[in-house]
Amino acid sequence: IDSRFPNMGTTIFTVMSKLAAECGAVNLSQGFPDFQAEPALFDAMHRHMLAGRNQYAPMAGLPELRQAIVDKVAALYGATYDVESEVTVTAGATQAIFTAIAAFVRPGDEVLVFEPVYDSYVPAIETVGGTAVFAQLKFPDYAPDWEQVKKLISPKTRMIVVNSPHNPTGSLLSAVDLEKLAEMVRGTDIVILSDEVYEHILFDGEQHASLSGHPELAARSIVVSSFGKTYHITGWKIGYVVGPAALMAEFRKVHQFNVFTVHAPSQLAIAEYMQDASRHLGLAAFYQEKRDFFRELMAPTPFRLLPCRGTYFQLASYAGLSELGDRAFAEWLTREVGVAVIPVSVFNADGRDDKVVRFCFAKREETLVAASQRLLKAF
Amino acid sequence: IDSRFPNMGTTIFTVMSKLAAECGAVNLSQGFPDFQAEPALFDAMHRHMLAGRNQYAPMAGLPELRQAIVDKVAALYGATYDVESEVTVTAGATQAIFTAIAAFVRPGDEVLVFEPVYDSYVPAIETVGGTAVFAQLKFPDYAPDWEQVKKLISPKTRMIVVNSPHNPTGSLLSAVDLEKLAEMVRGTDIVILSDEVYEHILFDGEQHASLSGHPELAARSIVVSSFGKTYHITGWKIGYVVGPAALMAEFRKVHQFNVFTVHAPSQLAIAEYMQDASRHLGLAAFYQEKRDFFRELMAPTPFRLLPCRGTYFQLASYAGLSELGDRAFAEWLTREVGVAVIPVSVFNADGRDDKVVRFCFAKREETLVAASQRLLKAF
Ligand SMILES: CSCCC(=O)C(=O)O
Ligand SMILES: CSCCC(=O)C(=O)O
Repeated sequence: IDSRFPNMGTTIFTVMSKLAAECGAVNLSQGFPDFQAEPALFDAMHRHMLAGRNQYAPMAGLPELRQAIVDKVAALYGATYDVESEVTVTAGATQAIFTAIAAFVRPGDEVLVFEPVYDSYVPAIETVGGTAVFAQLKFPDYAPDWEQVKKLISPKTRMIVVNSPHNPTGSLLSAVDLEKLAEMVRGTDIVILSDEVYEHILFDGEQHASLSGHPELAARSIVVSSFGKTYHITGWKIGYVVGPAALMAEFRKVHQFNVFTVHAPSQLAIAEYMQDASRHLGLAAFYQEKRDFFRELMAPTPFRLLPCRGTYFQLASYAGLSELGDRAFAEWLTREVGVAVIPVSVFNADGRDDKVVRFCFAKREETLVAASQRLLKAF
Repeated sequence: IDSRFPNMGTTIFTVMSKLAAECGAVNLSQGFPDFQAEPALFDAMHRHMLAGRNQYAPMAGLPELRQAIVDKVAALYGATYDVESEVTVTAGATQAIFTAIAAFVRPGDEVLVFEPVYDSYVPAIETVGGTAVFAQLKFPDYAPDWEQVKKLISPKTRMIVVNSPHNPTGSLLSAVDLEKLAEMVRGTDIVILSDEVYEHILFDGEQHASLSGHPELAARSIVVSSFGKTYHITGWKIGYVVGPAALMAEFRKVHQFNVFTVHAPSQLAIAEYMQDASRHLGLAAFYQEKRDFFRELMAPTPFRLLPCRGTYFQLASYAGLSELGDRAFAEWLTREVGVAVIPVSVFNADGRDDKVVRFCFAKREETLVAASQRLLKAF
């Protein structure tokens, strides 16, 4: 078979979770909670299924859920999106990102991404014949360099993808960053795709600078979020996008022929669950406790912890600890120490290796303790 | 906004279901049951959610469901697919089709489709820069013309998409058709995408000629099916593909970055539910009763019913009844008579209009009666 994508491998999340299972390692690699979501969600879903809500939802999503999303975004960021034409429910954030890229990027177009770059963006760009152009977020604070971005923007630039809170680095875009971004794109027809799936997980009182809350940027942005991350149900694969009607119409052209519509009873359960805003507003404190607990556990190890301002991922440098590249180190850690992590260089197109690995702390305390004990024993 | 797809409209299913709702019409347009699925499915899902199965399934699907699929396909078609490498669970058949096309079709490649052609195929081909080439299934029996197909195959042909039982026409591919198809592609590297979502809905004792059951074709085919159609849960959006490992590896390259993975608790519920084979084996008799009932109801109307050998769709010619084109006729029927249907010409790239509309009979008896009463009154 003459492969269309001869160089496309298997996503690192599949690779590491599989290796973790094979080795009986504590799996802090792929990002998902190992604790339970609230039964209220399951009971609601069960009730809606029994009530017969098992057939196709409208293509854009059930109105109950679209309304709840629009209300949330208005309350948090002061943005007013139209329920009919400016919000679409997706089969997870990954599908939202793939679809947005397919909707706007033509063969030959350039898409600016920041590396370390989440591993689905570039393959999605390549699937529709676009070219990724790489700006760097640099170790150790992983902040954008707007001078560099300015140089990389060309007449071919069709889209810029931003991601804050940033996976895998835990860095944030500030209000100042948004201003810089707005300057860069003013007068162009560049579309912005903003991956904000960790929008509710920021620490130390930091506020999320959503592109939805920046009217000038919002007018050219598709903003992506995820219920999996927010409600501890990553396996449900439900997310959404908001954006101005003109862009959303383009998004839906592809969405309708990609997945058409999304799991209906889950949409109803989530719409109900969202009514209590404390459930997403409380997430920052919930995860800050986990982050702080994990950082304390890691303090006695020789890993150097990097700043973690958002997301449920903690980066750690192992410089000085091992001569291995980060991919080999992550594999060794999984096999020999029994703790699975994600090597960060896989998110760099040029293979740049800062000797940094990513730990997921969306775990029960005993899981984090078990991991840290194995690390303490090994080092 | 400079649209990538200026000519791409809204899927006819959204258009007609919306119009039906606005007009209070009996909705026999979009294909979905208006009766309930079995509570056993909902209870199983609830149990698995309570048991904590709410995080990411493996990318290819949960092993429980993959095993059940492979067992079913082996029992029905004698095909042996490997559970690890030859089956992938998808977010519905539409996503399976989109992903398969994106995995194999390069810009400039040709994809042969048969029209009337299900409305997601051509947009998917265009999204990745391929070109659709159209063979005709001709009124009134809608059988493939293999001489025409032979002439349309070129060195640029990368894929042929077949669909049996065929939506919207209800025609079937026979074992002889599969032999013809095998002849056409022998010695080429053409991939076949076989949409078999109605595989369990064939009437009058007809047997489904699955490409899975034809070893020579199976070796180059991705075969798509749908749990939504089989278990009356179209809103769950779960389907699957089977195919040889070399093709499946390519499929998964795109799948992992399109949706990554699929609603986990649904997968577990379906895996359990599939254990009782009578649930899919009984579907043909279940829908034959509905088809026969609907045909009897329609007999006194001036519509001429076409043969319906499979699917839950009944085509009817209104030639002689109205001078309107089928799209205008379908709209008039929805607005003025109160019965929503799908005009078949929308599935023809050249707009060919056989004066035929499609009725979905996956409905409760009272729904079908209500529709037929409105039709009888109008004509
Ligand atoms: C889509 S599987 C990976 C989950 C995730 O976003 C991560 O681990 O970074
Ligand atoms: C994906 S919505 C349309 C359902 C369907 O397959 C049909 O009505 O033909």
